[in-house]
Amino acid sequence: MDESDQDRILYINQEVLPFEFRIEEMQSSADSDDMIRRMKVRGAPLIGVTAAFGIYMACLESIQQPEPQVYIREQAALIRAARPTAVNLAWAVDRMMKKMASAAAPEQLILVARSEALKIREEELQASYMIGQHGMEIIREISERKNGKPVNILTHCNAGWLACIDYGTATSPIYQAFEEQIPVHVWVDETRPRNQGGRLTAWELGQHGVPHTVIVDNAGGHIMQKGMVDLVITGSDRTTRSGDVANKIGTYLKALAAKDNDIPFYVALPISSIDFTIDSGINEIPIEERDPDEVREMEGLLDRKTVNVRILPEDSPVSNYGFDITPARLVTGLITEKGISQACESEILKLVES
Amino acid sequence: MDESDQDRILYINQEVLPFEFRIEEMQSSADSDDMIRRMKVRGAPLIGVTAAFGIYMACLESIQQPEPQVYIREQAALIRAARPTAVNLAWAVDRMMKKMASAAAPEQLILVARSEALKIREEELQASYMIGQHGMEIIREISERKNGKPVNILTHCNAGWLACIDYGTATSPIYQAFEEQIPVHVWVDETRPRNQGGRLTAWELGQHGVPHTVIVDNAGGHIMQKGMVDLVITGSDRTTRSGDVANKIGTYLKALAAKDNDIPFYVALPISSIDFTIDSGINEIPIEERDPDEVREMEGLLDRKTVNVRILPEDSPVSNYGFDITPARLVTGLITEKGISQACESEILKLVES
Repeated sequence: MDESDQDRILYINQEVLPFEFRIEEMQSSADSDDMIRRMKVRGAPLIGVTAAFGIYMACLESIQQPEPQVYIREQAALIRAARPTAVNLAWAVDRMMKKMASAAAPEQLILVARSEALKIREEELQASYMIGQHGMEIIREISERKNGKPVNILTHCNAGWLACIDYGTATSPIYQAFEEQIPVHVWVDETRPRNQGGRLTAWELGQHGVPHTVIVDNAGGHIMQKGMVDLVITGSDRTTRSGDVANKIGTYLKALAAKDNDIPFYVALPISSIDFTIDSGINEIPIEERDPDEVREMEGLLDRKTVNVRILPEDSPVSNYGFDITPARLVTGLITEKGISQACESEILKLVES
Repeated sequence: MDESDQDRILYINQEVLPFEFRIEEMQSSADSDDMIRRMKVRGAPLIGVTAAFGIYMACLESIQQPEPQVYIREQAALIRAARPTAVNLAWAVDRMMKKMASAAAPEQLILVARSEALKIREEELQASYMIGQHGMEIIREISERKNGKPVNILTHCNAGWLACIDYGTATSPIYQAFEEQIPVHVWVDETRPRNQGGRLTAWELGQHGVPHTVIVDNAGGHIMQKGMVDLVITGSDRTTRSGDVANKIGTYLKALAAKDNDIPFYVALPISSIDFTIDSGINEIPIEERDPDEVREMEGLLDRKTVNVRILPEDSPVSNYGFDITPARLVTGLITEKGISQACESEILKLVES
């Protein structure tokens, strides 16, 4: 997402990657809602930023409305509800609305919204960079024990620069280690049902020339048993103040396998994705259920055209849960822009107090 | 697989299910090898039976050969190596060859081979039935605590009647409970990369009217955390004498999640799939690596035609491991045709001594 002189808000349509690289323009606040729901943009930091720009657009649109304030509130509520699990979405909307509360005149409102959205964007970018700086030290330390052999890092879903503004969260330490010429190799979980690993992370890493191998989600346990994984890093859609981590469905299974094989399991996240209002991930974080067709059908390339094929018997019932909770006890540490923290309340609170 | 008066060996081509139901005929011993390699037939018990009939065919063919005994030995070695992980394949080949060692004349050899192959087939059928009888009691017991609510059973891959001769291994207790009107509901893991759960188990259960829901492999941990699973039953491709279980890749992850959520994790298997010669699953069972295209491409239905679509970036490197090992410590019990056993050497040995 970028803004030019004319305030065009451009984004990479992640729905069509890796088969097509398409830059699109956010046209309206309703558009931002649709982009988030359909996952044309995805990833906790990026949907926060998209929401912020969506509200800025709502401010622009409100001038044409009989009751501008009501219109903005309605659009904000709509965007805030686009997806339930990632907390950045609600966090960004609330932050925008709070900031705008002090602005009276419509023109002032627009300026405040624009400035705050840009600020959120800039902060997320900075956070991603700093996450990489801190996380790279974990990779460097492992590398020093491996005598030049690559550090094997497993990641789930896409917490790469596509999911953020740049660098990514989980991938930021990887990219920065790679730039520092620390030898790395990434195991990329396919990440069913939407294949963000196979479609986005594999594409991203390939673009940057980072050595990687795609595996099905089922394979992570086996390669850990065989000593082929040194480190797991994932992102997070919402982390509770006690360190429970909501992330893409299947993350919990990898955390269990890492624990069982004494492999460090880190979660990389900006502090904006910590929800300080809740304690228990399993009891308090709502888990999104999505369209069963995401499981029933598979999108792929056939004769250079993108098509959807049905991969299940015609009338098979399907459930499609989007996230799961990795309890804090399975998390070795949280890599944030302010440093690495243990996944427990006292240590997490120290991060924000510092 | 069935044999008629004219000794036609018929089988269901599992490569084309659920999009097409196609009965084919095994034409030669080379055909049996190809059927197993390409997974037109699959599942530990069924590939053992297929191998046995393949050797019978080799005996028929050997009459035309200059050195019949050499030919049979060569064909047997070929079939035995078709897939490395499931022990039934080697077990069935060895059993056939041992039995045939006492036969001298070619005609006698053919008769012995035919009779032994039919016997193996009959024994596997009986074993599957008895596994169901024993396993059903576990389901009945859970059902009695649930006041009429369905017992939720998670299974991985296909250890159904398609994988056996009838009933299945993991599904045999489910089918028999269903026939006894014990309320059941099955969570069907999709089972990437070949989707045996989504394609075969879902189809089988649908045909029988057994309530079920397909989920992606990633979802199992989440539904266990939420109390939506009462019991896990999987099959096994090879179990060591100490109770380590090789099964379809991803099984280990489900066993970890079951343990973490205090859910019983059972493995249903005929004693023919126990390898008494080995102790440690992780160190001693070879794990098959298959064609990366099984991960890179997806077969599905488009306009009533089966097509393959590419689902990854064009040049992404891929690894494709077929199985993993679930250590005995994660297995609540083994459901065999001779009863339910703990997954430990002393108890397993008692099974075969009885």
